[in-house]
Amino acid sequence: MSRWTQAFVPTLKEVPAEAQVVSHVYLLRAGYMRKVAAGIYSFLPLGWRVIKKVEDIIREEMNRAGAQEILMPAAVPAELWQESGRWQKYGPELLRFKDRKQADFLIGPTHEEVVVDMVRRDVKSYRQLPMNLYQVQSKFRDEARPRAGLLRGREFIMKDAYSFDASEADARKSYQAMYDAYTRIFKRCGLSFRAVEADTGNIGGSLSHEFQVLAQSGEDKIVSCTQCDYAANVEQAEIKRPAPPAPPAAPAELAKVHTPGKKGIDDVVAFLGVPAGRMVKTLVFIADGKPVVALVRGDRDVNEVKLRRLLGATEVGLASDAAVTEATGAPVGFAGPRGLKVRTIADLDLQGMTDAVTGTNENDHHFTGFDMHRDAPEVEFADIRLAVEGDPCPRCGSPFERFAGIEVGQVFFLGTKYSEPMGCTFLGEDGQLRPMVMGCYGIGVTRVAASAIEQNNDADGIIWPMALAPYHVQLLTLQAKDADVVAAAERIYGELTAAGIEVLYDDRDERPGTKFKDADLLGIPLRLAIGKKSLADGKVELKPRRAKAAELIPAGDAAGIIAARVRAELAG
Amino acid sequence: MSRWTQAFVPTLKEVPAEAQVVSHVYLLRAGYMRKVAAGIYSFLPLGWRVIKKVEDIIREEMNRAGAQEILMPAAVPAELWQESGRWQKYGPELLRFKDRKQADFLIGPTHEEVVVDMVRRDVKSYRQLPMNLYQVQSKFRDEARPRAGLLRGREFIMKDAYSFDASEADARKSYQAMYDAYTRIFKRCGLSFRAVEADTGNIGGSLSHEFQVLAQSGEDKIVSCTQCDYAANVEQAEIKRPAPPAPPAAPAELAKVHTPGKKGIDDVVAFLGVPAGRMVKTLVFIADGKPVVALVRGDRDVNEVKLRRLLGATEVGLASDAAVTEATGAPVGFAGPRGLKVRTIADLDLQGMTDAVTGTNENDHHFTGFDMHRDAPEVEFADIRLAVEGDPCPRCGSPFERFAGIEVGQVFFLGTKYSEPMGCTFLGEDGQLRPMVMGCYGIGVTRVAASAIEQNNDADGIIWPMALAPYHVQLLTLQAKDADVVAAAERIYGELTAAGIEVLYDDRDERPGTKFKDADLLGIPLRLAIGKKSLADGKVELKPRRAKAAELIPAGDAAGIIAARVRAELAG
Repeated sequence: MSRWTQAFVPTLKEVPAEAQVVSHVYLLRAGYMRKVAAGIYSFLPLGWRVIKKVEDIIREEMNRAGAQEILMPAAVPAELWQESGRWQKYGPELLRFKDRKQADFLIGPTHEEVVVDMVRRDVKSYRQLPMNLYQVQSKFRDEARPRAGLLRGREFIMKDAYSFDASEADARKSYQAMYDAYTRIFKRCGLSFRAVEADTGNIGGSLSHEFQVLAQSGEDKIVSCTQCDYAANVEQAEIKRPAPPAPPAAPAELAKVHTPGKKGIDDVVAFLGVPAGRMVKTLVFIADGKPVVALVRGDRDVNEVKLRRLLGATEVGLASDAAVTEATGAPVGFAGPRGLKVRTIADLDLQGMTDAVTGTNENDHHFTGFDMHRDAPEVEFADIRLAVEGDPCPRCGSPFERFAGIEVGQVFFLGTKYSEPMGCTFLGEDGQLRPMVMGCYGIGVTRVAASAIEQNNDADGIIWPMALAPYHVQLLTLQAKDADVVAAAERIYGELTAAGIEVLYDDRDERPGTKFKDADLLGIPLRLAIGKKSLADGKVELKPRRAKAAELIPAGDAAGIIAARVRAELAG
Repeated sequence: MSRWTQAFVPTLKEVPAEAQVVSHVYLLRAGYMRKVAAGIYSFLPLGWRVIKKVEDIIREEMNRAGAQEILMPAAVPAELWQESGRWQKYGPELLRFKDRKQADFLIGPTHEEVVVDMVRRDVKSYRQLPMNLYQVQSKFRDEARPRAGLLRGREFIMKDAYSFDASEADARKSYQAMYDAYTRIFKRCGLSFRAVEADTGNIGGSLSHEFQVLAQSGEDKIVSCTQCDYAANVEQAEIKRPAPPAPPAAPAELAKVHTPGKKGIDDVVAFLGVPAGRMVKTLVFIADGKPVVALVRGDRDVNEVKLRRLLGATEVGLASDAAVTEATGAPVGFAGPRGLKVRTIADLDLQGMTDAVTGTNENDHHFTGFDMHRDAPEVEFADIRLAVEGDPCPRCGSPFERFAGIEVGQVFFLGTKYSEPMGCTFLGEDGQLRPMVMGCYGIGVTRVAASAIEQNNDADGIIWPMALAPYHVQLLTLQAKDADVVAAAERIYGELTAAGIEVLYDDRDERPGTKFKDADLLGIPLRLAIGKKSLADGKVELKPRRAKAAELIPAGDAAGIIAARVRAELAG
């Protein structure tokens, strides 16, 4: 149904109050989707066409990479998650429910347990490996703060894939095959993206890459080397550190100074006139219920993900004021490493640091002349800070650039994290029983569509990449009641459709201005306008959505010219 | 991935203990699906291919009928269902949950409320009508007794569509268009089916047809006229009734007889030597909490659906023994209509009935010579019984045949049942605001696949209709290590694939017997075997799954012959 008068394309003039980011605004305004509840949307016909195009590209590339499509249920019995341990660990984003017989179930946010259970029952021999199974499915994650439309929704469509291999080496090949497939998928979607090293979070495993679409509205911060191809989520990014400075010839003396009411780094910097880089910032965290102290330079921030991994903890968060006082004996703002009875970890920047300023664990006082090794000898050193722009790359030492990104896909090398506890084993060629080596691979299908808009838009609306556009061409009449105009439009519509080109035909009896505005909002890559005046000269007006001006092309050749352009753009 | 050695096709030799009906057995044995929990399954690669073929046929025919595909969320906020009243009425099959903010949600078993909410916000004028929106989605209904695999599961895939019209007449056209589309869909799926008049159940509305696949394992009972085209679910079937008999010249006298311990119809029939057709069966029901008595001839059964509709009740069920005694004053088995203080409805068969036998509401006694009008003058008469084979058709009076059926689709004429309470209105051409007239239309996608197996199988396995088969052809080598055999198989495999024919190539190094057994189990319509001996004569063996014997065809023409057959079968 691609005549506007028979289609459901409810465009809006106003910006809906709920929407802030550009993809959210335009998806609503262009009639691609509607909100049903916070973070929960219905896709209207044009929006759904876009989603299916993303799905189809993913399916083609997954199949090409040798993966097999399946469908696992959304409703998953709790027993499987109890086996893996995730039932106990997963937070309130997990939708849990009891069925009418009071059995525990969940709506699967990912399907490692279900697929492992399937494979362990039916795959017994190395001859059946490798295997990569994927599905495309609506998922539900009960986000605390759903926002930004499809960028962080509660119900969303995801492609999830799971690979099973007989050895670590084979599993790395499977991982690389998925990495390559993802690269092809996001290229075909017309996205500008970076693959970056990433943390493994709720899923686990030992190696992971995120595929980040570069966009200002992105929630993720990534750094990438200005020289080599290292790139990582700041949560994950390693930093090359210079060798610690040699001890000074004349060490500064430790002194306690009165700093009444000077609680923050900024206050102390201003009050004592020292640079923030000479302060030792002392932060108390609670890791799985126990306090731990983290130290970083005053001008740097603690990376909680690195800290969590270092501690082997499940959850790490800043301590409450009361817990800070309990751990340090002082009010918040005066914590320091000296004399603490709590495990303390200092970032590598602090190795060899002397003549520093830090708290005393005593109200209204700070130390000056602080020497990390002399004055806090029990501190451990590790990489626990967030990377910043200009930090040296861990591979080549060149400075980092920093970007905002939208994570549209992530690949995980799981190893035997699920196969071992769940007994997903196979008989090797040597007759030995071994756990399979796994990987898992996700793509946020609906998020891909939104991130394409974040990268491709202007003040008038969306500018779809050809591969994701709901239609290739928007055909419109400038005079919907002129017989010649309508006849020409119908002829070209028929020719394009016969050539396999997808056409949205705006056949409404509306003013040209209204039709042009809607066409810009919808963002279909090519617009073909049929008007009385140019048609009298045998011409019609073709305007690519990205171009400033329309060009006149011969009405008789219009379908051929357009079909060739569409095919060229789809071929990349 | 269509080489067996690289595909996930875990066939089973044993019949799984959980499976009774044939589709359930073969879907498991042929490796099409696996159980995850009661009524909840994963689709393996071949099973998922079948489901997608069903979906594609449905999409093509829905689009052809002018419907537009959308996707609504599975998670639906309770407010929408509170508006329609279904939140309060729906039973425990509905999966309800609270989100992390304690807001009430449900997993939508159908989506009338969501689609009405969407349409009422964005459709305002008769110019935007008619409109038909559909989706294909996984649904969850918490069945009390999930059984028979995909025939009655808890999580299943459904196509649901909703039409909106400006008038009753237009809405009837939309209903008919869907009726016709469904007829095309099930024909294309290769099913033998009947469209029958049906009750509107949980959905509501004034007119409904079910599409019933004829199969012995069907849970639904349907009757169809042996002469005209009337057909209906027995729940719904009307029955032509003869005029009541004239009153007898000499009425029998009412007499109370001692029938010690004779509680059932059969007992009384045997004890008194009267036919069951002369007995008045008296049953106590509870309708929305209140007792009501239903009377039918001793050889007939009460139709609870007809009774429910007659009473305008939400729930009707047989009363407990205690409630029977409370309503009749006698133990179960001795109820009768005379002197009851409870509303009593008699089936039309009982009009003018005389000289009957029935209970006395007194232990161990029955009446003989009972005259319905003389002895129970307050009874109401209505059609409340189940149709049986031989009953006269309401249209032409010819006798009914009776079948078992599997309901694979249902269409409902909803009228303004949802649009009126939910304020889904439009401005008519005359400037009047009116509620839209709706229809809704469902197909059980996964059930279609299972019912195709119920109709098409033999002792060795499935026999897929070409349109639903996971692959068109199963190619296999009889000697997987013979170079000539493998070369011929590879060549034909390449030719078929290039011709767009879907081939599952059994390239395993297994005995021919194993491969043939698996091929029969999988049920792919054409089997092509390449063997050393016939290949030496330039021949290969083609065997349609339905045929008894294979035929030898020239190896060089095999791909062409097969491609032509596949295309002919798909074209119907």
